[in-house]
Amino acid sequence: MRIDILTILPELLSGPFSASILHRAQQKGLCEVHIHNIRDYATSKHKNVDDYQYGGGAGMVMMCEPIASLIDKLKAERDYDEIIYMTPDGELLEQNISNQLCLLKNIIILCGHYKGVDERIRQLYITREISIGSYVLSGGELAAAVLADSVIRLIPGVLNDETSALTDSFQDNLLSPPVYTRPPEFRGLKVPEVLLSGDFNKIEKYREEQALERTKQRRPDLLEHGEGN
Amino acid sequence: MRIDILTILPELLSGPFSASILHRAQQKGLCEVHIHNIRDYATSKHKNVDDYQYGGGAGMVMMCEPIASLIDKLKAERDYDEIIYMTPDGELLEQNISNQLCLLKNIIILCGHYKGVDERIRQLYITREISIGSYVLSGGELAAAVLADSVIRLIPGVLNDETSALTDSFQDNLLSPPVYTRPPEFRGLKVPEVLLSGDFNKIEKYREEQALERTKQRRPDLLEHGEGN
Repeated sequence: MRIDILTILPELLSGPFSASILHRAQQKGLCEVHIHNIRDYATSKHKNVDDYQYGGGAGMVMMCEPIASLIDKLKAERDYDEIIYMTPDGELLEQNISNQLCLLKNIIILCGHYKGVDERIRQLYITREISIGSYVLSGGELAAAVLADSVIRLIPGVLNDETSALTDSFQDNLLSPPVYTRPPEFRGLKVPEVLLSGDFNKIEKYREEQALERTKQRRPDLLEHGEGN
Repeated sequence: MRIDILTILPELLSGPFSASILHRAQQKGLCEVHIHNIRDYATSKHKNVDDYQYGGGAGMVMMCEPIASLIDKLKAERDYDEIIYMTPDGELLEQNISNQLCLLKNIIILCGHYKGVDERIRQLYITREISIGSYVLSGGELAAAVLADSVIRLIPGVLNDETSALTDSFQDNLLSPPVYTRPPEFRGLKVPEVLLSGDFNKIEKYREEQALERTKQRRPDLLEHGEGN
């Protein structure tokens, strides 16, 4: 899988992709992440990438030309399955979207900044608009990193233990049960006895009950959601 | 405002806080972000911070002791308003939570990794559990950065133009209207005439209509939500 991220602040993305699973996935050759600076495609003398918005009001708007030039260049080099724009008014990211995207070959992720990109870029180029949640960030970079992380970790071979992603929260519309490790007692709190019993069936049953109970308490919406799938 | 972030992968967080608004907010003295490596508080010979989970199964669990030692140390130094754990089974982050948190003085954000932290840390220390969305990430670091970003940008003085945050998506349970900047025509697509009219009242009305229309089409849940507030 190849992911091209388009940003005016590439330095924001240096951390997330140079450590942890995202780094290992690239080292193993399971995915490539290319970060492009939109400013390199600015044509004006001062390398502007943003300008005042028509109609007035606070906040700058990212200009069409530099983004269009960069996407045109990339599209001339290869076919892209999706050109995604990270924006608060996109569809809400959920696990099933990441599950779909991890099967694609080439995707572009465009990070907005300030008030966002000129609407015409969205009309001309963007195939999918995604929001990571109902809150506003100072830019699309963290959102792009979140999307890339949620997708890349699902590519077969990226996680050391492939069963690990299958038992994550959301994969079955349930939250995960509580987990414990040594010591068996910590500041007066003991690990539930069933987990120490060695009885695999009992442990499975306990975990299923806990997962369901926790989901009912904390995210009942996931259970309604699940019935429709 | 002071934010202490507890992680086993501090290098993941170097980018987001060393550029953009998050960096400027710190330089202006409007907030302090301290990143702590949990591994520095490991007591075992091999500086372990995780161990196998009781009851078996894929994925490691973050141990109690190093996290407890680090939080105890911080709590001895100052009072914390909230000790937040980033976890997929926490309450869903929404703009109103960020609005609340930006008023606090000192918060700790604990990043989970692998299968998460030992349940007893949650029982003993955590005052609030937050999820940035219904998807799984390879760790809590990006989630912590997202939370910090959404909060820090709301601190008065952080954004250059204070009216800018007020016109963001979600602040009034509406998505933002489309935005445009120069040129007036790009690849055959023109900026809507009303935005070039100079008629402030008309422009306001157009934007309100567009914001409402876009919210109806893309996120009708926000409108229902808004009625309850």
